[in-house]
Amino acid sequence: MEQQPKMVTGWAARDANGLLSPFSYPLRAKGDEDVVVKILFCGICHSDLSTIKNEWGNAKYPVVPGHEIVGVVAEVGSSVARFAAGDTVGVGYIASTCRACANCRDGFENYCAGLVPSFNAALPDGATVHGGFSELAVVNQRYVVRIPGGGGGASPAPLDRLAPLLCAGVTVYCPMRRLGLDRPGVHLGVAGLGGLGHLAVKFGKAFGVKVTVISTSPWKEAEAVERLGADAFLLSTNAEQMKAAAGTMDGIIDTVSAVHDLTPLITLLRTHGQLVPVGSPGKPVQLALYPLQSGPSPVGPRIDWAGGPIRARWAVLMVCDVADGKSVAGSMIGGMRDTQEMVDFAVEHGVAAEVEVIGMEDVNGAMERLQKGDVRYRFVIDVANTMARAR
Amino acid sequence: MEQQPKMVTGWAARDANGLLSPFSYPLRAKGDEDVVVKILFCGICHSDLSTIKNEWGNAKYPVVPGHEIVGVVAEVGSSVARFAAGDTVGVGYIASTCRACANCRDGFENYCAGLVPSFNAALPDGATVHGGFSELAVVNQRYVVRIPGGGGGASPAPLDRLAPLLCAGVTVYCPMRRLGLDRPGVHLGVAGLGGLGHLAVKFGKAFGVKVTVISTSPWKEAEAVERLGADAFLLSTNAEQMKAAAGTMDGIIDTVSAVHDLTPLITLLRTHGQLVPVGSPGKPVQLALYPLQSGPSPVGPRIDWAGGPIRARWAVLMVCDVADGKSVAGSMIGGMRDTQEMVDFAVEHGVAAEVEVIGMEDVNGAMERLQKGDVRYRFVIDVANTMARAR
Repeated sequence: MEQQPKMVTGWAARDANGLLSPFSYPLRAKGDEDVVVKILFCGICHSDLSTIKNEWGNAKYPVVPGHEIVGVVAEVGSSVARFAAGDTVGVGYIASTCRACANCRDGFENYCAGLVPSFNAALPDGATVHGGFSELAVVNQRYVVRIPGGGGGASPAPLDRLAPLLCAGVTVYCPMRRLGLDRPGVHLGVAGLGGLGHLAVKFGKAFGVKVTVISTSPWKEAEAVERLGADAFLLSTNAEQMKAAAGTMDGIIDTVSAVHDLTPLITLLRTHGQLVPVGSPGKPVQLALYPLQSGPSPVGPRIDWAGGPIRARWAVLMVCDVADGKSVAGSMIGGMRDTQEMVDFAVEHGVAAEVEVIGMEDVNGAMERLQKGDVRYRFVIDVANTMARAR
Repeated sequence: MEQQPKMVTGWAARDANGLLSPFSYPLRAKGDEDVVVKILFCGICHSDLSTIKNEWGNAKYPVVPGHEIVGVVAEVGSSVARFAAGDTVGVGYIASTCRACANCRDGFENYCAGLVPSFNAALPDGATVHGGFSELAVVNQRYVVRIPGGGGGASPAPLDRLAPLLCAGVTVYCPMRRLGLDRPGVHLGVAGLGGLGHLAVKFGKAFGVKVTVISTSPWKEAEAVERLGADAFLLSTNAEQMKAAAGTMDGIIDTVSAVHDLTPLITLLRTHGQLVPVGSPGKPVQLALYPLQSGPSPVGPRIDWAGGPIRARWAVLMVCDVADGKSVAGSMIGGMRDTQEMVDFAVEHGVAAEVEVIGMEDVNGAMERLQKGDVRYRFVIDVANTMARAR
């Protein structure tokens, strides 16, 4: 005999105008491997905005966005031994993967071809997956990470400021670790100083590397150096500064989401340097086709995404020269092992996002500001304390 | 009082028809740091052909090509302690670098901005640099490597078969070493089975890795597997074979010089796999602009090189997707330390090129065959034994 499904409240967009409003829906029935998470905080990632406005053409309305979740375990399924009610946990971009492929086996679930995101998605059995702008989420235990020090009682970690780590944090942390950009002596460039970029600066400093922020906005210099502790700032529109910095960086985490040319960044790299584009242009990418070293830069055609709208979230088409032994390395969020490692490292080293905490009822205004890039550096919704009044 | 310069004979092209014929020129005066090399063998690289036909617009006629040189030291300058008359030595693509920059300091002379090639070039003081299709060459000791076992007497190394290592060999060896594609357990793809490709197979087998050759030519399967010892062969025009091999390779050394799309190769890579294009298209590169995963493939514009014709030798403009943590890594020949290491490794492990040894007088016919790709796998000129009769 089936139980009556539990109804929960989230905030959903109903169409491409993207306006969010209260939405009642049946919570997915808890399976043996599932963890039921009472959501405390949920960060707002730019991809939430792109999805609710259907910029990638893949919105499955009504869409409850949100995939930077920190919460407390409310219940666990019968086979769950790793978590218990009261545990503080995090959930990121991944709701499900195939659990059988080499990527899943090796801890790179983020590259599983069967990846199901934690919002605007459906599980293989057809069950709808709604995101973190909601009271509760049901998530397979494999895709839940533990927030250390948060078990049941007072936590040393500021949970609101940890929420953005679950997507933005792991997106910058993983390539820095994997590509050896995490060692003293390294000079790391961070292009773009938004949600991802400011966390790249913080992780970089926690790793002990020299961090230079690269930005088009002069006013971000003080932010980068004084507030976030970057070692240097490079105004990318200043040709002299860029020239002086050419060939000085071991790696660059490129967090810029806007369409941009990669060549100036590649020029900043040392021999064998690595450029890692992790931003996610929400539009077709305009390619600037550059010759190898110099000369005029004919501008290439606009390319329409044909690779499927969901994948486009992560797509970075690029033209680059890879002379001087330089590389362009792809990277997309992180696997579950790395996500847990990242959270542990962040808590141990005091890495947390700079956030503006808002109430659920303020989410539409926050989305408008996010659209304009007007946030330092991440909006986080205080879901638990405001959902009731926002109903 | 200046000495009368010594006149030597080489074979030079006089114009863009590229025909080579005997050419007498004054040997550069030996400086304190120079080694005078009596040339025994010189390999023919495709870039020699492109240069004499002025395909890159940078030919400085008359051009004596050749930069895969094995010879014997005839004389040394007063400050040379590392070499003595009678030593068997090699000279590759590099004739000079600045010796002051970080690349030179770190052993990556190959990426020095002041690199002067060993043919069709001029030193900073204006002295013309002629290549290895000649009796003698004068080379700064820094850019000379020792051929082990060849000192003055009978050598265990087949010197004609070692000549191609000086450019083709180091071009494939270096990225395999640097990117960790040199360990048992690795699955290496080698795209293209020509001068570079066949050496990549041989180095791969010497490293103990699994090697799969990827080619458009079905008849190369027997060559790859039976003659060169590759573990497998993949016909890149066979969609089923390519699909079955998707996601199986840790790295690919892409030696294809013809204009080609990188996407099918990237598809063959595993998560975190690395594609290393080392071929050198002699023409403007036609870019196939692919969406991330599938769908139609609009063909991009032709790009004219504007980056300077010499640099174009090494230029690989590309469009790629780097999802799944895949990388595209640039690589260009190798530094002097790595070149010496490569030669030592090759001699120790019996790695040597498959060659067709020709007389100097046969060079024009060889160039014609090279143009058609009709060589297995490298022409090598027996300079010392045939220059006299070819005068």
